[in-house]
Amino acid sequence: MIETPYLLFLGDAPDMLAAKVAIGIRDWRPENAVGQIRLPGCGADLGLADMTLAQAREAGAKTLVIGVANRGGVISQVWKDVLIEALMMGYDLASGLHNLLRDEGDLVAASQTYGGTLHDVRVATDGYPIANGKARSGKRCLAVGTDCSVGKMYTAMSMDAEMRRRGLKSTFRATGQTGILVTGHGVPLDAVVADFMAGSVEYLSPDNDDDHWDMIEGQGSLFHVSYSGVTMALVHGGQPDALILCHEPTRTHMRGLPDYALPTLEQLRDTALPLARISNPRCEVTGISINTQHMGEDEARDYLTDLEERMGLPATDPYRFGAGKLVDPLQRI
Amino acid sequence: MIETPYLLFLGDAPDMLAAKVAIGIRDWRPENAVGQIRLPGCGADLGLADMTLAQAREAGAKTLVIGVANRGGVISQVWKDVLIEALMMGYDLASGLHNLLRDEGDLVAASQTYGGTLHDVRVATDGYPIANGKARSGKRCLAVGTDCSVGKMYTAMSMDAEMRRRGLKSTFRATGQTGILVTGHGVPLDAVVADFMAGSVEYLSPDNDDDHWDMIEGQGSLFHVSYSGVTMALVHGGQPDALILCHEPTRTHMRGLPDYALPTLEQLRDTALPLARISNPRCEVTGISINTQHMGEDEARDYLTDLEERMGLPATDPYRFGAGKLVDPLQRI
Repeated sequence: MIETPYLLFLGDAPDMLAAKVAIGIRDWRPENAVGQIRLPGCGADLGLADMTLAQAREAGAKTLVIGVANRGGVISQVWKDVLIEALMMGYDLASGLHNLLRDEGDLVAASQTYGGTLHDVRVATDGYPIANGKARSGKRCLAVGTDCSVGKMYTAMSMDAEMRRRGLKSTFRATGQTGILVTGHGVPLDAVVADFMAGSVEYLSPDNDDDHWDMIEGQGSLFHVSYSGVTMALVHGGQPDALILCHEPTRTHMRGLPDYALPTLEQLRDTALPLARISNPRCEVTGISINTQHMGEDEARDYLTDLEERMGLPATDPYRFGAGKLVDPLQRI
Repeated sequence: MIETPYLLFLGDAPDMLAAKVAIGIRDWRPENAVGQIRLPGCGADLGLADMTLAQAREAGAKTLVIGVANRGGVISQVWKDVLIEALMMGYDLASGLHNLLRDEGDLVAASQTYGGTLHDVRVATDGYPIANGKARSGKRCLAVGTDCSVGKMYTAMSMDAEMRRRGLKSTFRATGQTGILVTGHGVPLDAVVADFMAGSVEYLSPDNDDDHWDMIEGQGSLFHVSYSGVTMALVHGGQPDALILCHEPTRTHMRGLPDYALPTLEQLRDTALPLARISNPRCEVTGISINTQHMGEDEARDYLTDLEERMGLPATDPYRFGAGKLVDPLQRI
């Protein structure tokens, strides 16, 4: 659990491309950020108030979140000057960098001296249980993809926002470092030891009100041979009542695997649904989320119309056209 | 890589049930064991020569392998006296205990003083790569089960032995602690971090001669919700050319999951084969291995005959009737 609200550290990021985490926080949990702090030469700007550490502390900020990627695989001295000053002022630090905060002696020393916590969200810290497979109360939705990086996190985030907009009970359950930093909690599933993967998903998504939905962030793909085991643990540990199929239609091969073609949405449905029903026999595929960023608007609309007819399921691009079509069916489950 | 040959430490094990690892070594790699060493009160006996540490060292033993489970979750002082003396004499130590050798200060100190290595085979030590999915030369066989603990390791071990008996090229590839101690190498897959599971299986089973078979030890089950992600990583990282379906017909529910029924062998075939073909389109199901330990001999034979007719595949219990029927089809691939 990372304490909110945050001050978002943009460092000397050259541009917005480096600021994926900070953008995620601004877009999905703006209430979690009191402002941004930038170093000289920073080319990223979230449009939030620029603040000093002291100003943000006064505004209530509890944690300084590193919202940008670093350069060259090191945490530079100019960054560290700010991070250590933040610890001195009582901040916790949170980071999804490959370089761990806990591996930097000066940061560890400062955190011990001043009492702040160093959150490295790429590292699995909890002692997760072995999955027990017991049916849990409450409802769960899981996005599964034909490939990695097709929009599963965005789909779950946007459905969660739409659910809450409608006054329905919904919680986004983060399984990757961006989602964990955005929401302040979650399980970094790809860093969990194999035996405990499904158990960590059960832990992440416990018993809840009967009309409450967990929107569980998907990872990998059942068809991506590098990460399919992680996806499988989500399908079985998550016990989804609803699956959303995610796809990016212009992709020519599986991400990072030039010899592997993408499956069709039908193949994804026919593979994922029987596997999901092992842990939750009531599971249904309730919708399709298409990442149309590389398609013109007419092309995207035609594609979605054809797809709805072909598969008999609501299909949309939640980024472009909203997540309403994906949420509607959940209200009938 | 654990240096062979071994001296097998049976400690003060009350009976043979506690000696699973030592029995595995004696049965599958007798050439790896120069003898056994027992403490007063030991009720286990492998039928190997009883030796002192000095005698076994003289006979060439390189590693003292803890071949039995310990009691009460501790490594007792009487055990440690032997283990430390072994380190003083130049032995390495190897263990699959939940209590790690490396967590015992006196063993660590002795290993540092005398130079012996402490092998805790439950811990993943190598830096495994992310799986790249590239087709590898050589052939691979993987046993997949309707449940955990239905005989997948035994099936692969016995097929490997039968292959070598026929003069064919075969290597057993261990993915669990017993198999690793038996053969001296392998990957403790259930202890590998999620992102690297499939990559560790690729690492375990690299390019090889076109007529060489890796007999990859299976883990878990695609239908066992606690461990299915581990199984999935084996199916995709292993790139099997041949799948063997494993089953124990008298089991009433999935191991440790009282609410879960076992799948049928048909369900296992129809689930595992399409998934395996994602990474190896040439994969076939080539045989069925039945654990008939709870059936009379006539009952077992009738069951196997019916099964062969029902599924159109060779079916046997390799422990009871030999692994020949399972190896025959591999010679035609």
